[in-house]
Amino acid sequence: MKGIRKIAPYVPGVQPNSHNMIKINTNENPYPPSPKVAEALKSFDSNQLKRYSSLDNLSLKMALAEKYGVSPEQLMIGNGSDEVLAFSFLAFFNSEDPILFPDITYGFYKVWADLFHIPFKELPLNEAFEIDLQDYEQLNGGLVIANPNAPTGLFKTVEEIRLFLKKQTDVIVIIDEAYVEFAEDSVLSLLDDHPNLIIVRTLSKSQSLAGLRIGYAIGAPEYIAILESIKSSFNPYSVDTLAEALAAAAVKDHTYYKKITDEICETRDWFSQQLQTLGFESLPSQTNFVLSTHYKLDMEQLYQFLASKNIFVRYFSKPERLNKYLRISIGTKKEMKKVLEAITNYLN
Amino acid sequence: MKGIRKIAPYVPGVQPNSHNMIKINTNENPYPPSPKVAEALKSFDSNQLKRYSSLDNLSLKMALAEKYGVSPEQLMIGNGSDEVLAFSFLAFFNSEDPILFPDITYGFYKVWADLFHIPFKELPLNEAFEIDLQDYEQLNGGLVIANPNAPTGLFKTVEEIRLFLKKQTDVIVIIDEAYVEFAEDSVLSLLDDHPNLIIVRTLSKSQSLAGLRIGYAIGAPEYIAILESIKSSFNPYSVDTLAEALAAAAVKDHTYYKKITDEICETRDWFSQQLQTLGFESLPSQTNFVLSTHYKLDMEQLYQFLASKNIFVRYFSKPERLNKYLRISIGTKKEMKKVLEAITNYLN
Repeated sequence: MKGIRKIAPYVPGVQPNSHNMIKINTNENPYPPSPKVAEALKSFDSNQLKRYSSLDNLSLKMALAEKYGVSPEQLMIGNGSDEVLAFSFLAFFNSEDPILFPDITYGFYKVWADLFHIPFKELPLNEAFEIDLQDYEQLNGGLVIANPNAPTGLFKTVEEIRLFLKKQTDVIVIIDEAYVEFAEDSVLSLLDDHPNLIIVRTLSKSQSLAGLRIGYAIGAPEYIAILESIKSSFNPYSVDTLAEALAAAAVKDHTYYKKITDEICETRDWFSQQLQTLGFESLPSQTNFVLSTHYKLDMEQLYQFLASKNIFVRYFSKPERLNKYLRISIGTKKEMKKVLEAITNYLN
Repeated sequence: MKGIRKIAPYVPGVQPNSHNMIKINTNENPYPPSPKVAEALKSFDSNQLKRYSSLDNLSLKMALAEKYGVSPEQLMIGNGSDEVLAFSFLAFFNSEDPILFPDITYGFYKVWADLFHIPFKELPLNEAFEIDLQDYEQLNGGLVIANPNAPTGLFKTVEEIRLFLKKQTDVIVIIDEAYVEFAEDSVLSLLDDHPNLIIVRTLSKSQSLAGLRIGYAIGAPEYIAILESIKSSFNPYSVDTLAEALAAAAVKDHTYYKKITDEICETRDWFSQQLQTLGFESLPSQTNFVLSTHYKLDMEQLYQFLASKNIFVRYFSKPERLNKYLRISIGTKKEMKKVLEAITNYLN
């Protein structure tokens, strides 16, 4: 057969589905979405679905614009930040020079580069698992930095990114802020001075809406328009009517989300400390997960033990540097206490 | 700025949104989705949305598999048939030979070919606006045929497609059946003997779910697996949890959809006849729209007159062959009576 594409797809974390499981393997939020989402769902008239969904997603753009103090023209909405990132790669990475991203980061960057035949280089994290931004001062066709980075959880300060952007002015720099609500700050304040900055975000983690598929980009109107034209050339209606209505309801409920985000950050810091008393070492996380290792435990065995107790965390067999770690998403405090109990039993 | 993509995006029909309008410009279904969809919506627990949506969309695949007598391995689900088609172009059209499709057909084929740098040739419809399948017996890297075709509404019989497939055995042949529920037959029965056949369908038209974004492909497990790997490399979770639940409820309600589909076909045939008495000529449609012309009317002016009466139909200024026609989607009988009244007023 002619023309068939051969490709190694992205392999997402497994999605176990047993009763009473503690599912802390894909960085989902343990709390339900805002009660406003449930209200929007109950009051939605399914008759609306006979019409195509919105092309401009204006109701959601207005809600986001108000929340972040930007204009709707600075926003593009997509079906999850995965779609937004895929469109961004198609829109902005058409140079013959390689795009650059860390060797340990969101695994999908490499997959999109492969899919779209975009040349790329993966730059190694330093010994402390940090992104060394100086390494990126080389010929390139674009940059993608997850901040905080995953699965390390480590954060570059806004000042560090600002200095970095000063040196990268002729390519698009994507800052993937999927986890930023759990971090100390965002690069939003850098938008005005850096038209080549594109910020990508998602409602999956912080808004407890992984199953609804809403992500967005914030950037200069000129480049957001390019992104919209790629969306219009691929799948213009990718944000369905229900998803837009529910997402807008979520975005407006600052109070609820501030509360659960604070709770997750508090649980995260408490959990890391507790892990430390059990002999674990965790990278200082500014996300809703921790990357943790133990000086004398085999992490694959611990992963399997926890799974046998209906506790699902993420273990990476590759790359080698990561296979001494577990990535543990932060659940409720009650869930994390059970995790600590299980680990304590394993240690005894 | 380096690497920025320049592209002419697909321009969808405008989406007017005034009160009491008759919106018959984008081939939406005038009837609400099945009451089972409303029930599924009301009983959906929004707490589920905190988890990622399904990777395999098995609940919807099972419903479709039962409806069509195929196996789940023969099905791939996407965010509208637009996404399914875009993924199919990426999956199957990687030859250096041009893919072939009609010059007058779904406008997106050309847009995807451009977006993905796929060489293509547009073959002219014959004088009767028909696809002449003999023209396609030339060197090619793949084929896309909408059947029924849009915006003509014309249908190739299953026997014609069967004979065609006998000659096209070394490339993937996509038959886009977006409108097939309004036609006399489907090429489903050809699947077993033709592993290179991929059928693409949508819930947007026949299931009144344009706003929910569900499309699917049916084909041989071997090629469906390739399509799934492209989806996994682009946006693995593109079908959200709510959309999957509501779509499955719709697919199971054969009775309701048979009733409204029959009603639309009946209204379509009646409407064409009525148009004829007013001096119009319509192509014999097997879809939920008619393509109609009038020997002495300027169609752009008629389009504008109808819009001024809050009746929105589709006018194509290009290509020249089409600008003597209007494409009119079939609404309820009550709506189509009002359309006829308005046209009668215009004629007087």
